[in-house]
Amino acid sequence: MTGFVSDNVSGVHPAILDAIIKANSGYQMPYGADDLSKLVDERYSEIFDKQVVVLPCVTGTAANSLALALFTKPYNSVSVYADSHVYLDECNAPGFFSGGARQVRVEGPNGKMDPAKLDMAMALIGQRQSTQPSAISVSQTTELGTVYGVDELQVIAGIARKYGQRIQMDGARFANALIALNCQPADITWKAGIDVLAFGATKNGCMAAESIVIFDTDLAVEARYRLKQSGQVLSKQRFLSAQLLAYVDNDLWLANARHANAQAAKLAAGLSALEGVALMHEVSANMMFVKFSDRQIKALQKAGIAGYVYDDGYMRLVCSWASSDEEISRFLAVVQDQA
Amino acid sequence: MTGFVSDNVSGVHPAILDAIIKANSGYQMPYGADDLSKLVDERYSEIFDKQVVVLPCVTGTAANSLALALFTKPYNSVSVYADSHVYLDECNAPGFFSGGARQVRVEGPNGKMDPAKLDMAMALIGQRQSTQPSAISVSQTTELGTVYGVDELQVIAGIARKYGQRIQMDGARFANALIALNCQPADITWKAGIDVLAFGATKNGCMAAESIVIFDTDLAVEARYRLKQSGQVLSKQRFLSAQLLAYVDNDLWLANARHANAQAAKLAAGLSALEGVALMHEVSANMMFVKFSDRQIKALQKAGIAGYVYDDGYMRLVCSWASSDEEISRFLAVVQDQA
Amino acid sequence: MTGFVSDNVSGVHPAILDAIIKANSGYQMPYGADDLSKLVDERYSEIFDKQVVVLPCVTGTAANSLALALFTKPYNSVSVYADSHVYLDECNAPGFFSGGARQVRVEGPNGKMDPAKLDMAMALIGQRQSTQPSAISVSQTTELGTVYGVDELQVIAGIARKYGQRIQMDGARFANALIALNCQPADITWKAGIDVLAFGATKNGCMAAESIVIFDTDLAVEARYRLKQSGQVLSKQRFLSAQLLAYVDNDLWLANARHANAQAAKLAAGLSALEGVALMHEVSANMMFVKFSDRQIKALQKAGIAGYVYDDGYMRLVCSWASSDEEISRFLAVVQDQA
Amino acid sequence: MTGFVSDNVSGVHPAILDAIIKANSGYQMPYGADDLSKLVDERYSEIFDKQVVVLPCVTGTAANSLALALFTKPYNSVSVYADSHVYLDECNAPGFFSGGARQVRVEGPNGKMDPAKLDMAMALIGQRQSTQPSAISVSQTTELGTVYGVDELQVIAGIARKYGQRIQMDGARFANALIALNCQPADITWKAGIDVLAFGATKNGCMAAESIVIFDTDLAVEARYRLKQSGQVLSKQRFLSAQLLAYVDNDLWLANARHANAQAAKLAAGLSALEGVALMHEVSANMMFVKFSDRQIKALQKAGIAGYVYDDGYMRLVCSWASSDEEISRFLAVVQDQA
Repeated sequence: MTGFVSDNVSGVHPAILDAIIKANSGYQMPYGADDLSKLVDERYSEIFDKQVVVLPCVTGTAANSLALALFTKPYNSVSVYADSHVYLDECNAPGFFSGGARQVRVEGPNGKMDPAKLDMAMALIGQRQSTQPSAISVSQTTELGTVYGVDELQVIAGIARKYGQRIQMDGARFANALIALNCQPADITWKAGIDVLAFGATKNGCMAAESIVIFDTDLAVEARYRLKQSGQVLSKQRFLSAQLLAYVDNDLWLANARHANAQAAKLAAGLSALEGVALMHEVSANMMFVKFSDRQIKALQKAGIAGYVYDDGYMRLVCSWASSDEEISRFLAVVQDQA
Repeated sequence: MTGFVSDNVSGVHPAILDAIIKANSGYQMPYGADDLSKLVDERYSEIFDKQVVVLPCVTGTAANSLALALFTKPYNSVSVYADSHVYLDECNAPGFFSGGARQVRVEGPNGKMDPAKLDMAMALIGQRQSTQPSAISVSQTTELGTVYGVDELQVIAGIARKYGQRIQMDGARFANALIALNCQPADITWKAGIDVLAFGATKNGCMAAESIVIFDTDLAVEARYRLKQSGQVLSKQRFLSAQLLAYVDNDLWLANARHANAQAAKLAAGLSALEGVALMHEVSANMMFVKFSDRQIKALQKAGIAGYVYDDGYMRLVCSWASSDEEISRFLAVVQDQA
Repeated sequence: MTGFVSDNVSGVHPAILDAIIKANSGYQMPYGADDLSKLVDERYSEIFDKQVVVLPCVTGTAANSLALALFTKPYNSVSVYADSHVYLDECNAPGFFSGGARQVRVEGPNGKMDPAKLDMAMALIGQRQSTQPSAISVSQTTELGTVYGVDELQVIAGIARKYGQRIQMDGARFANALIALNCQPADITWKAGIDVLAFGATKNGCMAAESIVIFDTDLAVEARYRLKQSGQVLSKQRFLSAQLLAYVDNDLWLANARHANAQAAKLAAGLSALEGVALMHEVSANMMFVKFSDRQIKALQKAGIAGYVYDDGYMRLVCSWASSDEEISRFLAVVQDQA
Repeated sequence: MTGFVSDNVSGVHPAILDAIIKANSGYQMPYGADDLSKLVDERYSEIFDKQVVVLPCVTGTAANSLALALFTKPYNSVSVYADSHVYLDECNAPGFFSGGARQVRVEGPNGKMDPAKLDMAMALIGQRQSTQPSAISVSQTTELGTVYGVDELQVIAGIARKYGQRIQMDGARFANALIALNCQPADITWKAGIDVLAFGATKNGCMAAESIVIFDTDLAVEARYRLKQSGQVLSKQRFLSAQLLAYVDNDLWLANARHANAQAAKLAAGLSALEGVALMHEVSANMMFVKFSDRQIKALQKAGIAGYVYDDGYMRLVCSWASSDEEISRFLAVVQDQA
């Protein structure tokens, strides 16, 4: 299989794997009391240019839901983009982790919440028979592969301030957004009003390593116990921390995301030049949605090139740190043959 | 540090690490649709001599709590050994995963529930103002390092049948019990009335690999969605399945547990021969509780040999697949010097 | 105030109040072990022409949510009409009572779910990353005052059978629907595939009396403990059972609903005859939505005649057992004056 | 039946019933927007000599659990007296309402928590694998009919301050304690460090009326939504508020409790004088535990005089506002006949 289905079909980057192997030496105290785990907060505080607390965990679902649970009691609601991952693809984990909070879907163009509609969703505040909006979840990169600009995040942050909402960012593809925007991690997180970031690393080269990056460190104590109670604290945590450290060493995370975005740009450029192929949006990061003919889709499948095919004939394609020039050339060749 | 604190302070067994490295080849579908994950059910069904469904996850807390959630609605209770791990050390995860179920503590000698007291705990059944017992949790190996014999499990199973209870086994150290009892996996699980096993692999040589082994396969659908909703389904699940497969290949798990138990026996024998040292119980598996003098404890700490020291002066010592003869000799030498 | 805001602004029917007063004699065992509570199951079984178990409670929110909790685990979803009471006006109580289940909104005309859209909502069944539909909630009378015909319920029941869904009915205004349809209670409940009915009595003349009528009596044990655990079992339950018994004695419930529906018909007929007044739907039961001019709305408010006024200029008007001919005449006169 | 089983076997005091009847006049807005409900906060603020927010509800289970949910997240624990009502008799409602919090049982003499043992229970604070104590629940009157003195409450409040715990009071029999202590409501609530009181009224003469009295009014908003989401907000709330107002009008609540305590004292005095009868404690309020002979117990049952009989041969007897001199004389006569 050649994998454009998602960036999570790629394996582990060699540097990450080396770090895991290197961590396998001697005895280490469990549950985060090991030597590597102690380094994570400081290392990530440098990256985010602010003192942060980092809680390592193993899935994005857990990272998102635990972060949201900090802001939502059972009678609260989270405003999310209508077709966000957190709404569609996590089996209502935020409802479970919060003990009953609802997600309210906010529509908008290009995979982003329309600020006017987000503002309107706040009309429920104070209505006694209704769930009470308390948090906003923003995906960066979005589920459509688009990216919120700094100014767009500031608008959402303004709404959050106006209505007393906290903001969580689903950063499963945070690095890809960062590269797309060519800015600093702080610019699109705490400086833009984000309270907690679900910081993805698995898709971008790790084995199983996500983390909850807490900018308002007062939330850390609660988050730690919620993490423990939900079965996300590993006994041999050194191997998780090893990944998180290697991920940012020598800017590996940025290099990987830069590569993935660049390969996506190449693929998009190649596809745009072909007849009968249509891209849904401009490609900002490492994901695109492309309309192919039935013949093209069948040819791709026959060639062992996988991508999610939606009912409307669009195919989602995602590049990763592992996507090679050869794979992209081959993809384009298969499609061109069926033009 | 030389680690007798717990078996989870040891690293990853080389064969497991090799399997992880080998799995890192090419693209694989995510969330358990990879080639390795498809093999797990069949492989484990052979081991347990029965068709089972295996749900891989990353912590024992999750494995225990998800298994118990299958049997407990919010108004139910789980009968547990009074000082069990699931009661004392999991931040009431079973209460969270079930949405409110209670754990009822059952006392007993040698780290095991007294069947008569377990039977008495069932008196609440049918009392309208009380939580309703619906499940029993049994640790095998127990938290005191003792082991339930097949006959002892049968007694508990009899109580379960009598009162309509389901049985979950916390098998964080399942392999060690198996070696201690010199029996087959089936003998102390489904043949002894166990409905679901939290099958530990991390402590016995894996990196982060536990699983929920479901003997009553009708429970599998529910278990799968609960696993997803609680953020335990890895996107690059191949690396988790690789561990679970390598763990049982060539009976590695049994060899590792046999080694750990043997080293514990050596350590226990050595300590018993020393003056001023007292073992709390006969050592059946890979764990022991030993009373040292203050001088001995200080000397051990000074020598970098760690173990949990309790208020009553007892120290918990656990051997693992990694415990070497040299480490044991050194331990004994340090203690002997302070006799 | 003259109350057309809702039928719950009316007081308690004299016959119900008399029953409460009569129940206040001597000592009675608590928590439903009193003499009156023992009669309820039998009495309601006659009415529903089937052996039922009745769990008295005090709010519709509790009755709906507890009924739904019987069918929904945290990873499940309930299909509800998009603007149903259970979705909009109960602060996501079903999410709380189930520990995380989601409500999926199904659109449709006239306040009823479109069966084709309900069928489409079932497409999520078996998708591993999604909540799993397990129950359907139907309001009878609907929130728009319309009524599901027996044939319409049968269609929904067919979908439920096809996909293994259970059906709960929100019967806050069950009696009004029954009168509108001129049928037997069984026809629009268990014979039409309803598993559990939240049987409203408060709006139709009681003080605070709802109940969960369970047609599949196997569910009764679980329901009873959930009721207790959620704080809905009254210690002096005789006064709640007294209401439930008096409510059906001498067909009081039917007489009250017949009156309410008849008064609504009179009001609707009178309003239809007026210029500048528009009714949203045909009036089937005791509720209507009417468009008035701003002048008319102000005049009504000045006259102390209350009704919910929506943003789109529609006013909701509800008649009850207490609505008198004089009140209706006065309403019409005030509106006519401003025509 | 003559009811000494509990004070909740008595009916409704005539003055309360009159208030209900009087409230049944005309239309009133629902869900607490009626004229009577608006008066409750002010009236209770006078009684407690402090601005309070009062949330009416219908059961003590709901009042206790909702109050505790304000202080307990799923990973927290509540310290309770080992055999408290909230632990034994509410089907773990606090676990359900909090989404998983645990109750930790604290032993002590005379139905009260031993402060030293309460202090020891705080040792879990900061232990990462353990639930985190966050609240203390105190029953006043206790389940054994004893009463915490002001000084005893102050000691508990000191522990709460020391460890950052909030205090909830289960005041199902608050009035009886107040009479026993001959002090002001403020003295044993907010002045003694109580944050929230579950204020019982049902047992002492109401029909179904409890309330959550919130001294720290910042908690009121959250409490209101939790109340709604758990199905405790009545649509015809005027009848609940009518009870709560009549309950305190003309000091009815104090008169009723004074009567109940006085009758209990008479009964206790009479029993103490009889041979073969033993009282477990001095009687402070309206409850006592008395050891009778088997013959006496049978004679009482034959005479239709009910009381809970425990396995150890003790019988619980509770007097209420309704207990008459005749009933007490008859009780004593039956026992004496069997002496």
